Amino acid sequence: MAVDTTFGSDNHSGVHPRVLEAIAAANQGPAVAYGMDACTKAAMARFREHFGKRIDAYMVFNGTGANVVSIATLARPHQAVICSEHAHINADECGAPEAVAGCKLLAVHTADGKLTVEHVARHLQGRLDQHRVQPAIVSITQPSELGTVYRVGEVKAIAAFCHRHGLYLHMDGARLGNAAAALGKGLGEVSGACGVDMLSFGGTKNGLLLGEAVVSFRPELSRDTIFIRKQKMQLASKMRFVAAQFSALLSDGLWLENASHANRMAKLLADRVAKIRGVKVVQPVQANAVFASLPRPALDKLLKKYFFYTWDEEKCEVRWMCSWNTTERQVDKFAAEIARCCK
Amino acid sequence: MAVDTTFGSDNHSGVHPRVLEAIAAANQGPAVAYGMDACTKAAMARFREHFGKRIDAYMVFNGTGANVVSIATLARPHQAVICSEHAHINADECGAPEAVAGCKLLAVHTADGKLTVEHVARHLQGRLDQHRVQPAIVSITQPSELGTVYRVGEVKAIAAFCHRHGLYLHMDGARLGNAAAALGKGLGEVSGACGVDMLSFGGTKNGLLLGEAVVSFRPELSRDTIFIRKQKMQLASKMRFVAAQFSALLSDGLWLENASHANRMAKLLADRVAKIRGVKVVQPVQANAVFASLPRPALDKLLKKYFFYTWDEEKCEVRWMCSWNTTERQVDKFAAEIARCCK
Amino acid sequence: MAVDTTFGSDNHSGVHPRVLEAIAAANQGPAVAYGMDACTKAAMARFREHFGKRIDAYMVFNGTGANVVSIATLARPHQAVICSEHAHINADECGAPEAVAGCKLLAVHTADGKLTVEHVARHLQGRLDQHRVQPAIVSITQPSELGTVYRVGEVKAIAAFCHRHGLYLHMDGARLGNAAAALGKGLGEVSGACGVDMLSFGGTKNGLLLGEAVVSFRPELSRDTIFIRKQKMQLASKMRFVAAQFSALLSDGLWLENASHANRMAKLLADRVAKIRGVKVVQPVQANAVFASLPRPALDKLLKKYFFYTWDEEKCEVRWMCSWNTTERQVDKFAAEIARCCK
Amino acid sequence: MAVDTTFGSDNHSGVHPRVLEAIAAANQGPAVAYGMDACTKAAMARFREHFGKRIDAYMVFNGTGANVVSIATLARPHQAVICSEHAHINADECGAPEAVAGCKLLAVHTADGKLTVEHVARHLQGRLDQHRVQPAIVSITQPSELGTVYRVGEVKAIAAFCHRHGLYLHMDGARLGNAAAALGKGLGEVSGACGVDMLSFGGTKNGLLLGEAVVSFRPELSRDTIFIRKQKMQLASKMRFVAAQFSALLSDGLWLENASHANRMAKLLADRVAKIRGVKVVQPVQANAVFASLPRPALDKLLKKYFFYTWDEEKCEVRWMCSWNTTERQVDKFAAEIARCCK
Repeated sequence: MAVDTTFGSDNHSGVHPRVLEAIAAANQGPAVAYGMDACTKAAMARFREHFGKRIDAYMVFNGTGANVVSIATLARPHQAVICSEHAHINADECGAPEAVAGCKLLAVHTADGKLTVEHVARHLQGRLDQHRVQPAIVSITQPSELGTVYRVGEVKAIAAFCHRHGLYLHMDGARLGNAAAALGKGLGEVSGACGVDMLSFGGTKNGLLLGEAVVSFRPELSRDTIFIRKQKMQLASKMRFVAAQFSALLSDGLWLENASHANRMAKLLADRVAKIRGVKVVQPVQANAVFASLPRPALDKLLKKYFFYTWDEEKCEVRWMCSWNTTERQVDKFAAEIARCCK
Repeated sequence: MAVDTTFGSDNHSGVHPRVLEAIAAANQGPAVAYGMDACTKAAMARFREHFGKRIDAYMVFNGTGANVVSIATLARPHQAVICSEHAHINADECGAPEAVAGCKLLAVHTADGKLTVEHVARHLQGRLDQHRVQPAIVSITQPSELGTVYRVGEVKAIAAFCHRHGLYLHMDGARLGNAAAALGKGLGEVSGACGVDMLSFGGTKNGLLLGEAVVSFRPELSRDTIFIRKQKMQLASKMRFVAAQFSALLSDGLWLENASHANRMAKLLADRVAKIRGVKVVQPVQANAVFASLPRPALDKLLKKYFFYTWDEEKCEVRWMCSWNTTERQVDKFAAEIARCCK
Repeated sequence: MAVDTTFGSDNHSGVHPRVLEAIAAANQGPAVAYGMDACTKAAMARFREHFGKRIDAYMVFNGTGANVVSIATLARPHQAVICSEHAHINADECGAPEAVAGCKLLAVHTADGKLTVEHVARHLQGRLDQHRVQPAIVSITQPSELGTVYRVGEVKAIAAFCHRHGLYLHMDGARLGNAAAALGKGLGEVSGACGVDMLSFGGTKNGLLLGEAVVSFRPELSRDTIFIRKQKMQLASKMRFVAAQFSALLSDGLWLENASHANRMAKLLADRVAKIRGVKVVQPVQANAVFASLPRPALDKLLKKYFFYTWDEEKCEVRWMCSWNTTERQVDKFAAEIARCCK
Repeated sequence: MAVDTTFGSDNHSGVHPRVLEAIAAANQGPAVAYGMDACTKAAMARFREHFGKRIDAYMVFNGTGANVVSIATLARPHQAVICSEHAHINADECGAPEAVAGCKLLAVHTADGKLTVEHVARHLQGRLDQHRVQPAIVSITQPSELGTVYRVGEVKAIAAFCHRHGLYLHMDGARLGNAAAALGKGLGEVSGACGVDMLSFGGTKNGLLLGEAVVSFRPELSRDTIFIRKQKMQLASKMRFVAAQFSALLSDGLWLENASHANRMAKLLADRVAKIRGVKVVQPVQANAVFASLPRPALDKLLKKYFFYTWDEEKCEVRWMCSWNTTERQVDKFAAEIARCCK
């Protein structure tokens, strides 16, 4: 019997049918490459609808690409990025921010994956000391890598602090849709409207085949981003096929439908497992991730049937992700299997 | 009337129907991300069929990504790459090899885009001089950026020279299919079998939506390439959708069908325009590009109806590209328009 | 009254007279630049006397230069360096290892500045995971930035662990003389003989005008270091004047005389202040640094008369350094002043 | 008999006695490191005397360091530097500008080492094309690597062109004293007053033990240069000893005395060799270098007695450098030897 990979990650899911249709529809006739095409123009209009008229958007290939293009736009190599130790840029990008943008990360221990003004403030002490990298960016992940969601007020507080101290606020929104859905807000309301300067906006985990975007809320900062995107190897030649996907995602509420569904499935899963003796949900389930601990023998048994990530080997903490196409039946079956393993 | 973009580039074309079908077929159920899926496994088998059993292949997003991952695998930042001044890595990648891999390019003037042993030899004089970057890689483009094709013996001669002098041979094969088709050889015969150590194998221009691959003919050199691919932001999460495209391209002769057709259309176009007074074909038409000069007034007129690149403003030299889906009718119409503009 | 800077750092001291004489003596006639001169040859002989016949040494300008040349020699940009959070490379080099060598640092919390095998082991969990930087180097500072000294057995244990796990051991020996003097061992005995692969050997803080050296105990690893030194901007043209300084330092026991004296003065200072009510020595005084805490009002008063670094503002912990030319009288006067401030 | 190295380079000479005295004089008591000392303050006053009240200066270790700090200050990695193919940054720095600052160099063929407005203009065509690095800096070497000197009007013309086109003008003045002496102008008159934005000012070749400086004529551009200097490993801890050298060089006309003498010796040598049959002076002798060609057999014979660089092996062109302490007798003896070899 093959291992079930449904709850391993939200990028284990495939492409939403409407996205695939949009790709097929874009496959008509020739189109100038590198973004000078009608599909890209249309996608730009969608981005502006959701994020504001004044923004600029730069479609890229993947999340690491979006983050590095953002960092390389906002900071120079002698500058640094303050982030959580759990941040994807710090833990999961094989050193790309350092090696490609040249910037040191100043990683902060956080219990729930969320950065606070206090965390940031502590790292400003080395300012003006020529031996220290100079913080230029604060990067927060929304929702965080631990599945928690910043409230609007929390982001606004960090943004205000950043701007008072000459720092830019970057948001890694690889799952921004899930955060916005959780907060009952629009995509722009939870990013640019909170004071975020630059956003890595994720599409892949919300139903695209492939595609992320750097959204710049202050176009005066991103005048050179087209060159940075190209140099950092994030410029698609047949851009229309990335653009068409974003147009689909940002039309007729598809992003929200997908994200809300994934969040709902996570809540359902959390409810189910909370009742299982031995299982403990260890982070608030605010988006589409469930972080839980379970007894070692149960964990070992479960891993024989399901593929997912063990987040903390010592504490037997695991991550279960739900996606736009996770079904209630899959959740029920998974919860039943967990219960069985915990017996 | 809209400007016709058909002959602007082979990446102005869309996705081949069989490739699109393969994407749709891959969209079944969940699949582990980052290449641990069945589609990727199947694509690897296809790569080995064409390039040899011992090779390793690393799928990436775009050609610049493939080139930089290759360079970063084979050279360290104090080392250099010898290439033609026309090489894509030198002229069209916004400094990615230097900024991302750290390697200086030693660019050589070539009349026809093709490097020779003599060119390479000249750049070895600074060896052992601590003030000079140390050449580690020779990079050739097959077919070259000027549409010319290295003969098998030419590549073998360069490879032999490289290996005698401790250099690696990299081939930028963004259009490798077109070269192989032109030479009547297999993909592996014109690359690894000629002594190429690492290849950037292009899919996008030969009918994919998006996808290139680094093919390593010496896996002992590429043991760290998975990390380099990730760090250089070229690792797709939903890898199955890139893999499925390559499987289609490398099955049932699709790569050859597409490439041969494009080459044939270029020959046809060259034949047509050769008869037009004032037009001069300035490079041998060996793959799918036609480089030609035409009188300035004719050029200006033509640009109002067709989008394509002027290669040398002073000499009025232009590049016209044919693609897997260029039709005879389009060629005829274009040639007729050129003739009209030249009157 | 000017602020006294004697105890601020051991690089506040000037040049030892014998070093200055050596510089003057080297100023005879022309000499080929970049290390092809007789002074450099003589210095190399001295390095081999102290560190072993098989070593190679590369003189550089400063400690950051020595560290970065070491890292760039031993690791590639997708690889990482495990070090203490207090390590100079992590805390005081303005991001040079990341920006210039491209390598991420994996910094470990340590109470006393010293890394252990356990610390290192914990960071090997991400190995083979393509999303994680791959540890290639462990870097320890001897003596540590907190003035503590690794015992020979401790270094050997780390080295053995490193080599068992395919890691290189780098030692930042900006004050190596002080450690060797403290341990009653030779310079090679506390570095290469313990299994260190590459050493940043400090001269400046031990009485030179300027000069550090990368000592490679495995010359097969450093065949390209001459190019890396040049590229990382650490190659002196008039090398003879750096070489002459090292020859003086490594002749007639000057390194040991200077280092022992500095250590003795630190012990003396520690003894003096230990008796002062309110002052607490917070790290073992094993080399030439005294880390102590004192009451905030006393600290504020003292800073008006003496310049030194507050290591931990919250805990009122400070660092007092002694040097090759610190006098007993200076120590007495300083201790008296501290006592006065603590009343 | 040992090979005579006098004419090999101006960095084969030692330290001027007044510079050595200044070092010894600075060796008094403790001084805060990293430039917060009285010697540095005094040197800064000297720099401002010569270069203007509004400038900032950053002392560094070597010429490559000065150039890279300048480039990293003025350009970001997606930007480029236009320079002569002979420029030290392009030919002799082992790829430091590319690897450390990340910037591609756009090297221009020049017959005499001097860049013109036309050269620069040609490289502006790729502007706004996202596939091309974006020129941000023009770097000229004064005097050029071929010993020629830009006239004041030539530099002003380039500066005016640069500023009209949004480019910065950097001057590599590793031998600026020689150029100023040749032109009968002050150091500031031939740099900042001509429109140069940032200067690498050389001390080593004009009689220092070691020391160069980045002089910023537009301090608003170099607000971060202290961090860049540290990160690029160019910050001396015992800065006072670099500063003292510059104070000596910039006092009582020492720079001019040294530079004028070297220039005079080069003219003398050129006069002497011009009379020798078979020897041809191939570049105008405007500073302290003589570029000449001589018959292959004569060259081979001469190289057995004198060490110097063959600039072009095919053309048998060599470079002979004179220095602040080259004597007329040495010139006479050398010329006599050349004559002997040419017989």
